[in-house]
Amino acid sequence: MKKLDVCLSPELLGTYNLEGRIVVVIDILRATSCMTTALANGVEKIIPVATLEECRLLQQQGNLAAAERDGIKAEGFDIGNSPFSYMEPEVKGRTVAMTTTNGTLAITMSRAADEIVIGSFLNLSTVADYLLQQDKDVLLLCSGWKGKPNLEDTLFAGAVAERLQGQFTEESDNPMMARTLYAAGKSDLLAYLDTATHVQRLHRLNIRKDIEFCLKSDVYNVLPVLKGDFLVKMEFQVVE
Amino acid sequence: MKKLDVCLSPELLGTYNLEGRIVVVIDILRATSCMTTALANGVEKIIPVATLEECRLLQQQGNLAAAERDGIKAEGFDIGNSPFSYMEPEVKGRTVAMTTTNGTLAITMSRAADEIVIGSFLNLSTVADYLLQQDKDVLLLCSGWKGKPNLEDTLFAGAVAERLQGQFTEESDNPMMARTLYAAGKSDLLAYLDTATHVQRLHRLNIRKDIEFCLKSDVYNVLPVLKGDFLVKMEFQVVE
Repeated sequence: MKKLDVCLSPELLGTYNLEGRIVVVIDILRATSCMTTALANGVEKIIPVATLEECRLLQQQGNLAAAERDGIKAEGFDIGNSPFSYMEPEVKGRTVAMTTTNGTLAITMSRAADEIVIGSFLNLSTVADYLLQQDKDVLLLCSGWKGKPNLEDTLFAGAVAERLQGQFTEESDNPMMARTLYAAGKSDLLAYLDTATHVQRLHRLNIRKDIEFCLKSDVYNVLPVLKGDFLVKMEFQVVE
Repeated sequence: MKKLDVCLSPELLGTYNLEGRIVVVIDILRATSCMTTALANGVEKIIPVATLEECRLLQQQGNLAAAERDGIKAEGFDIGNSPFSYMEPEVKGRTVAMTTTNGTLAITMSRAADEIVIGSFLNLSTVADYLLQQDKDVLLLCSGWKGKPNLEDTLFAGAVAERLQGQFTEESDNPMMARTLYAAGKSDLLAYLDTATHVQRLHRLNIRKDIEFCLKSDVYNVLPVLKGDFLVKMEFQVVE
């Protein structure tokens, strides 16, 4: 049987073997929700980079530049980290260089994996269906908040683990812990997340509308995957 | 208000500031349960060491030596990692050098803390009462399994966080996540833990009796604390 594990923070990645695996990178608030939204709304490709400097260099080369640090748009960049920015007609057909506090770093750290795909509630079923159809072990990687596990990424890992249950062997206690938390919160994720510290921090930044959107399941059926240095939309048919 | 956080694995310790804090080291199966049992049953002091070599050296100097790796007693040592070993009359008044796969390493890694105390279900109320009475921030440190968070240590962190709720500010989502898991499992911890991978591993080693014992709450009212290189019993009165 295929194997499934959940890594609650990139700081724990050293204890996992990524070789031959599909890694699903998760940063619900808001990097991977933005990536999903961007590719669903016509952005051609995304270049995830770890540093502001790389992002600025790519901006100078004519790309749109999205940069967030500590929840707000970094100075001098075109856009911040709101999924609604990617619904504007100006972004269609563009290449976006993107750096965020946690999510793009998690992608950079997963380079040893066989495949890197992007997960968010917005494309939950698409991600789960894809993982079920592949013949590969899976690691769900939560980006967390500055090295610490956080609730919203763990909840999404739990949502995917629930969909995969019975089809994968769970390798540690972490998938079960994530499933349990998701089961406790899924009837009203927004209310449940109101108890989370990171969400409280984002509330102070007045982005409640973003949070509500990022918690919606299955708004899009796109699967962002890393091809070389770019995140692009993978064409993928669900086999019924 | 005093601050509380939970660290789900020693691998995440770098993201926490230990200065001025009480760190509660947790390794339910079975290091910290053994330490609690040992001091409650007359062991004079425990020397936690990270390596088998240090443990062997202390054995040669006339101490009892307890060493476990991968769930079983390491060759050439006096005792393994069963709490029942510490109920034998021969251990009374002795000094025990102890090394285990995860728990003693977590102690070694916490040296920057203001105080290090040992937590297990066996002394749950004593630990919680002590933390409530001190005027210090607290970090509950789960030893996990080879770097990964595990269920049983997270459950105990949740049990303590539940006792401290309202008296401490929770600094990240981790105390809330641990409390939620404890709430889901507390009515029958043994049945709940049967779903855990580490427990399944230990079952294969035939230590069900140990596991049942390690999940009992408030068997002892001792508080093991680190003084210099030794774990000793702290005399401590609950103020009603």
